[in-house]
Amino acid sequence: MTVLILTCEEDVTADMVVVHLSASGVPVVRLDPADLTGGVALSGEYVHGAFRGHLSAAGRLVSIGGLRSVWVRRPGPAAGRAAEPSAWLTEESSQALYGMLRGSQARWMNHPDAARRARHKPWQLRLAQRCGLPVPATLITTFPQAAREFAARYPDLVVKPVSGAHPQDPPRAVPTSRVAPETDFSAVAFGPTLLQRRVAKRADIRLTVVGEQLLAARKATPADADPDEVDVRFASAATPWLPADVPHRVAEAVLRYIREAELAYGAFDFAEDSDGTWWFLECNQSGQFGFVEVETAQPIARSIAEWLAGPGPDRRDHINGTNTTVL
Amino acid sequence: MTVLILTCEEDVTADMVVVHLSASGVPVVRLDPADLTGGVALSGEYVHGAFRGHLSAAGRLVSIGGLRSVWVRRPGPAAGRAAEPSAWLTEESSQALYGMLRGSQARWMNHPDAARRARHKPWQLRLAQRCGLPVPATLITTFPQAAREFAARYPDLVVKPVSGAHPQDPPRAVPTSRVAPETDFSAVAFGPTLLQRRVAKRADIRLTVVGEQLLAARKATPADADPDEVDVRFASAATPWLPADVPHRVAEAVLRYIREAELAYGAFDFAEDSDGTWWFLECNQSGQFGFVEVETAQPIARSIAEWLAGPGPDRRDHINGTNTTVL
Repeated sequence: MTVLILTCEEDVTADMVVVHLSASGVPVVRLDPADLTGGVALSGEYVHGAFRGHLSAAGRLVSIGGLRSVWVRRPGPAAGRAAEPSAWLTEESSQALYGMLRGSQARWMNHPDAARRARHKPWQLRLAQRCGLPVPATLITTFPQAAREFAARYPDLVVKPVSGAHPQDPPRAVPTSRVAPETDFSAVAFGPTLLQRRVAKRADIRLTVVGEQLLAARKATPADADPDEVDVRFASAATPWLPADVPHRVAEAVLRYIREAELAYGAFDFAEDSDGTWWFLECNQSGQFGFVEVETAQPIARSIAEWLAGPGPDRRDHINGTNTTVL
Repeated sequence: MTVLILTCEEDVTADMVVVHLSASGVPVVRLDPADLTGGVALSGEYVHGAFRGHLSAAGRLVSIGGLRSVWVRRPGPAAGRAAEPSAWLTEESSQALYGMLRGSQARWMNHPDAARRARHKPWQLRLAQRCGLPVPATLITTFPQAAREFAARYPDLVVKPVSGAHPQDPPRAVPTSRVAPETDFSAVAFGPTLLQRRVAKRADIRLTVVGEQLLAARKATPADADPDEVDVRFASAATPWLPADVPHRVAEAVLRYIREAELAYGAFDFAEDSDGTWWFLECNQSGQFGFVEVETAQPIARSIAEWLAGPGPDRRDHINGTNTTVL
């Protein structure tokens, strides 16, 4: 059974995982959908009620029925590097590739539907609430008056994008920023704006979840840190990421979140306040983990490799309805 | 409890359904996400573990918690008609709107995730096989040699797009066409190609499914029809669509398909051969039904209105865990 990794050519994070898979002797095929109809080819046949499909990449042929798992890392747009690329060719190639893979029994990290849903921040906030994670008071609005009333109740606010990275090429991360005290909020009428009570934090938490495994890292906020430096990705603080224990209640809530979101991988960001409470900020289903692994030496890549190599409940159920593993 | 209809302004099909809903006294809000930050506004607040959200359109305010159902008909791109439209504003507005709606308890026709998955034709074919529907032998390939071998086994083939409509503006339907006998198939290497055994049909079948209700229509193929006129959408035959009974085994298989696809609405196309077998061609989760309703007088719009107005199992479960309805 083969692990299929969909990612672009230059992906050091994927390299880290491939090293572990190869060391365990697990067959891996890595391809970029952008190379479709160039270095990548596909074929699938539906005859007499059965499906037989194959992918070929770099001269290797792999059966779709023989896939153990699919890791959707950083794939390019299908056929994006074809000799004559077009929106139509990308659509045809994407539907052909993902349409066949969706019909397979492979386990996904993460399934495209779960990944797509998980990107919606309003949905994340609601799910986090339902799972019992503390969520800072948040407003998403196009009503200036609603923004003004919210700012009256919560005078210390940050503003962040609803959707994450700005879709320019290459995508640009938009930092979370502090809202100035005298802000008027009239501009809210021109586009949905996400306002959130600023958590006076003593640390940032990055909690990486792989399957049911939790790996937390903590970066202390220096006492003399500039309170306007809200976004840890853009902060100048030189404190390191260190491994951290996950409070029992947080662990339970996070595992519930991951199960309900049907994710196999998620990178949670929390702000830890002076009481030690972890406030949910977001869960990024495709969050980078290389920087945490390098600083903390936590075995994230190895955990991902093990998850991808494992048989998992889906496959066990599918083989014969018992708990026999097929590793 | 309100029915929310997401569609563009000129949508006669939606008009037909609104007539039925209004006649039953069911509150309806109809809006086009393209009008966001213009005639449409939104606001949602996450405070103390709870969510309260509102949409406003044409001067009417509706609570997201008070939505009974959401009909995703033909919505425009979010904020597409804003004063200064941009990809960034569309992404922000789409995530805000659908992110909030996804967190609601409303029933969807169809849920965006189910709709997206259901568009993948390779996935459709595999699901149809699994549900026991007869599927004509099909090949999707970028290997010219695989296409040639398939054509040797099945000399009478049609070719159709993998993904449906060509993404030009306005989208153009690409007709299914017959493959000429001496076709070389070299061009298959440049893009995935879907080849399918041609069914020598004596009728086209359109089976519309609304919830668990099946409404079938049949259009006989004239004996002197040109066998090159494969695609009923482009055929010149003047025979009418007439109501038809659904064979018991087909009904069971179709209901299984709809359940597994998690669709509330689907328009199935079948080709009926000389033995009376219905061959699955596709299931369009957003298929038009107006032309069938007009010719057959089948109550499709009324069925949709009833489904949208109904409480459904999700809501019943959610209210108090019993089967109490909340109509």
